[in-house]
Amino acid sequence: MSWSQTEIQLPAHSRGFHLITHEIERGLNDLDSVNVGLLHVFIKHTSASLTINENASPDVPRDMEMAVNKMVPENWPYIHTIEGADDMPAHIKSSMFGPSVTIPVSNGRLNLGTWQGVFLCEHRDHGGRRKVVLTLQGE
Amino acid sequence: MSWSQTEIQLPAHSRGFHLITHEIERGLNDLDSVNVGLLHVFIKHTSASLTINENASPDVPRDMEMAVNKMVPENWPYIHTIEGADDMPAHIKSSMFGPSVTIPVSNGRLNLGTWQGVFLCEHRDHGGRRKVVLTLQGE
Amino acid sequence: MSWSQTEIQLPAHSRGFHLITHEIERGLNDLDSVNVGLLHVFIKHTSASLTINENASPDVPRDMEMAVNKMVPENWPYIHTIEGADDMPAHIKSSMFGPSVTIPVSNGRLNLGTWQGVFLCEHRDHGGRRKVVLTLQGE
Repeated sequence: MSWSQTEIQLPAHSRGFHLITHEIERGLNDLDSVNVGLLHVFIKHTSASLTINENASPDVPRDMEMAVNKMVPENWPYIHTIEGADDMPAHIKSSMFGPSVTIPVSNGRLNLGTWQGVFLCEHRDHGGRRKVVLTLQGE
Repeated sequence: MSWSQTEIQLPAHSRGFHLITHEIERGLNDLDSVNVGLLHVFIKHTSASLTINENASPDVPRDMEMAVNKMVPENWPYIHTIEGADDMPAHIKSSMFGPSVTIPVSNGRLNLGTWQGVFLCEHRDHGGRRKVVLTLQGE
Repeated sequence: MSWSQTEIQLPAHSRGFHLITHEIERGLNDLDSVNVGLLHVFIKHTSASLTINENASPDVPRDMEMAVNKMVPENWPYIHTIEGADDMPAHIKSSMFGPSVTIPVSNGRLNLGTWQGVFLCEHRDHGGRRKVVLTLQGE
């Protein structure tokens, strides 16, 4: 049984959905040694989130961004507006998708479905760099 | 301390919300032996998801399906439409609910509330069979 | 390596979003002793949920409540209405945010971002007391 934990920093991304599966795998030194386990990926922010979605078509992340802006428009009567019109919608979208994903690990690999990838959901216009904690456990 | 991991396959379900708590429990051989632990349930798809909701009234899953179709309508200006009008909304709903649930295990049983059950959220019209990975850990 | 599990009871809260990070930390006796680990927080109800969001401005939880009521209005054609107009929307909001959060533990502390706090999302008008299971594991 082993535990390992690392913090990685994602460079600034534009507003939208960005595939980060490879960045996560690169942050894991000891994935090979885990036969059965779980990987927990956690973003330390409240205006960006993490999700798992289709990793193949570039149209999927574009449609995701279109859809979240329809689900949580910027013109609702928000009180918390001092950080810009994109700020409060970003908080709501972040809670909708959540700050973490947990992925099974099997035979030294992330046990994702063929079409699954991990996405950074950048909900701010200028979110900057984002910190992500990777916690790997297993045996 | 023990880890166990199994993949189960759910038969094709119609579009909507389907209680699968018993299917999950049937997939776990060693739940009895876990005094304190966690069960992670992960669906390996991006157009179906998992959630926990009310397990008693059959009206709840029907209303859930009505509601998700209002939250994410099929007539938005999606780009990714080649797999049908139900496809891109399915991806968005999947991220909204997420691909996994994690449930406390206590004294050899899933420690769910009285009214809590695990649901397969089938967001496609014809999603087919769905693979689910069960990862149980505890002591 | 250690596991511990406790159930805490949150007092009745008004409908809306309420910071409960301190209540959670108070429920954990052995957080200090965990160098690397994870905390799983699980609410045993289907009309309240848990999320992580901005812990500083009191306007954020107010705007969250405004927004969820726009996302899931009470005047949709629900079938399940016998427990009141707030009941079925509460079930949908609960699945949207989910019944649990999982937080990395590092050096004896919850490894949250500076602005992150854990919120009880009380989706009922009169939800009453809420049971929450804390499962802490690590080494």
